[in-house]
Amino acid sequence: MKVSELGEFGLIDLLAKMVSSSKSKQLAPWQQVILGIGDDTAAWHGEAGTQLVTTDSLFQDIHFTLKTTPWQELGWKALAVNVSDIAAMGGVPKYALVSLALPGNTEVADVTALYQGMIELAQQFEVAIVGGDTSRAPLVSITITVLGSTKNGEGHILTRSAAKPGDKIAVTGSLGAAAAGLEMLTNQLQFSPEATAQLRNAFLHPWPRVTEGQLLVAQGVKTAIDISDGLISDLNRICQSSKVGARVEVDRVPISPVVKANFGDRALELALSGGEDYELLFVASADIIDKVKEAASCPVTVIGEIVADKIGKVALVDTKGNPFLLSKTGWEHFAT
Amino acid sequence: MKVSELGEFGLIDLLAKMVSSSKSKQLAPWQQVILGIGDDTAAWHGEAGTQLVTTDSLFQDIHFTLKTTPWQELGWKALAVNVSDIAAMGGVPKYALVSLALPGNTEVADVTALYQGMIELAQQFEVAIVGGDTSRAPLVSITITVLGSTKNGEGHILTRSAAKPGDKIAVTGSLGAAAAGLEMLTNQLQFSPEATAQLRNAFLHPWPRVTEGQLLVAQGVKTAIDISDGLISDLNRICQSSKVGARVEVDRVPISPVVKANFGDRALELALSGGEDYELLFVASADIIDKVKEAASCPVTVIGEIVADKIGKVALVDTKGNPFLLSKTGWEHFAT
Repeated sequence: MKVSELGEFGLIDLLAKMVSSSKSKQLAPWQQVILGIGDDTAAWHGEAGTQLVTTDSLFQDIHFTLKTTPWQELGWKALAVNVSDIAAMGGVPKYALVSLALPGNTEVADVTALYQGMIELAQQFEVAIVGGDTSRAPLVSITITVLGSTKNGEGHILTRSAAKPGDKIAVTGSLGAAAAGLEMLTNQLQFSPEATAQLRNAFLHPWPRVTEGQLLVAQGVKTAIDISDGLISDLNRICQSSKVGARVEVDRVPISPVVKANFGDRALELALSGGEDYELLFVASADIIDKVKEAASCPVTVIGEIVADKIGKVALVDTKGNPFLLSKTGWEHFAT
Repeated sequence: MKVSELGEFGLIDLLAKMVSSSKSKQLAPWQQVILGIGDDTAAWHGEAGTQLVTTDSLFQDIHFTLKTTPWQELGWKALAVNVSDIAAMGGVPKYALVSLALPGNTEVADVTALYQGMIELAQQFEVAIVGGDTSRAPLVSITITVLGSTKNGEGHILTRSAAKPGDKIAVTGSLGAAAAGLEMLTNQLQFSPEATAQLRNAFLHPWPRVTEGQLLVAQGVKTAIDISDGLISDLNRICQSSKVGARVEVDRVPISPVVKANFGDRALELALSGGEDYELLFVASADIIDKVKEAASCPVTVIGEIVADKIGKVALVDTKGNPFLLSKTGWEHFAT
């Protein structure tokens, strides 16, 4: 059945029922919800402490194409990228609102698959989907807003603006697999079944580093960002906000093994500027980073250090300390 | 200059500066803000009590066209419709996030005009614009999320689901002028300068009934909705949520005088199903409505009553109690 046959109110009803039947009253955010989908606003019992909110849009043929991104994965990813922003602040995600625009000839089964993917992520990260909006549009777009808070309403948040010269720069996990996965799907590249699965998963099923973000706060880290546009591009944002420079030793950047094994010379470029890995990039003293390494259950790699530079330049160097040139630093909208 | 020449980061910088220079530290929400535009999330000091959140999207050529809606008015309206949802709960709007999608060849001056309109509304209603998202898209779209709370974190909220048989149905202000304004702009209808200004203003510059929503709560009203899709369509939502029916005496519906004077036979239809007036439609005992009338600084008109009917039907009757037929009840997305 097409969305236009079901109608707007029929569709909202169907999606509200999916969310309602998926919710577990045991999950902390649902216990606070007063009103979910179906009124003028959502409502819940508020709390003292630092509150967080972020919003991100995914537009068809700009941020994704339905050729490479199945509906269910699109749902997972649309919510994941927002939850990742809460993770990058060291926060706890709690509530989500979903504003969905669809052509009238969209299959209802595709929309329910999209919601299935979102609900999976929501259950995994204990997020309550409390509201949203549905409209007709020539192309699919999903704008999600996620609200959260610091853990137990206590503790500081991870901003982009607290980096200081002498701090070390580190990343969680490894980089490049998401961008490599996109290339594989776009160009129908052939790899081993295992490599194919890993690359596909990295691009379509990113895992927001929520646990790690909270761990950074607990260990005293003050500065972090999630890698959405690309390592260099996102590091550049920290430098601009903190009014410092950065020196990255490119050979220390942890390239995803599946990318190293299958993308040859291009592996490093994918890791440096590919984006969409949703790992955390953070900055702290060497002591603090050692403590993070010890406490984290994922790899943590130091890749460089913060230097004094009010212009906020990111310099890349090779093992010999020579400048390393990179043609493309990351994704920018409206770039020509 | 075009948006594509300025680039995404240049545009975000420019808009962040506009918001920043417009903000008054005296406004209550800004005093609570920890982080505004420019980090992974916005952050503020939370509070106990009922919290509210709503999100609404406006898509070019679906919800508006740039032929009839200038950029500045588009900005005002995009924020107004969301603030109106908070008003319909009886709440206080506080924080807004703006997710904006634009073609690369959009003029930067148009985008700043859009923000100017939003900032005007934000200042008028004491809303802090704390974040958002900007992306390229083939058509303009604006998704705004507004957060709020009950007044001082106390008191109940106005839901759609608390209407009971015997309750009276009332509306604030008068209806039909927004839809008439859209017709005027679309079909280039000619009226007197005064009528033209009134109709234009009703469509492009809706005034969310925030004060009135809070007054409804204070007077003990439990059920309300804002009229966005049309009186009958929105009353139908109350009936569906409350599992009751409604009987509307069409001759009691307050038609906007400028519509009555200029749209002849069609005036009533515009008032019943035109939508976008953003007046409040509410339901309460006759006693409570009398108290609201006394306290309100805008007209309040009783238009009918709630009746027992689990199917949730809205019946329209004329002065003699005979059924009144209306062809179109309101706006529905995906409707064929």
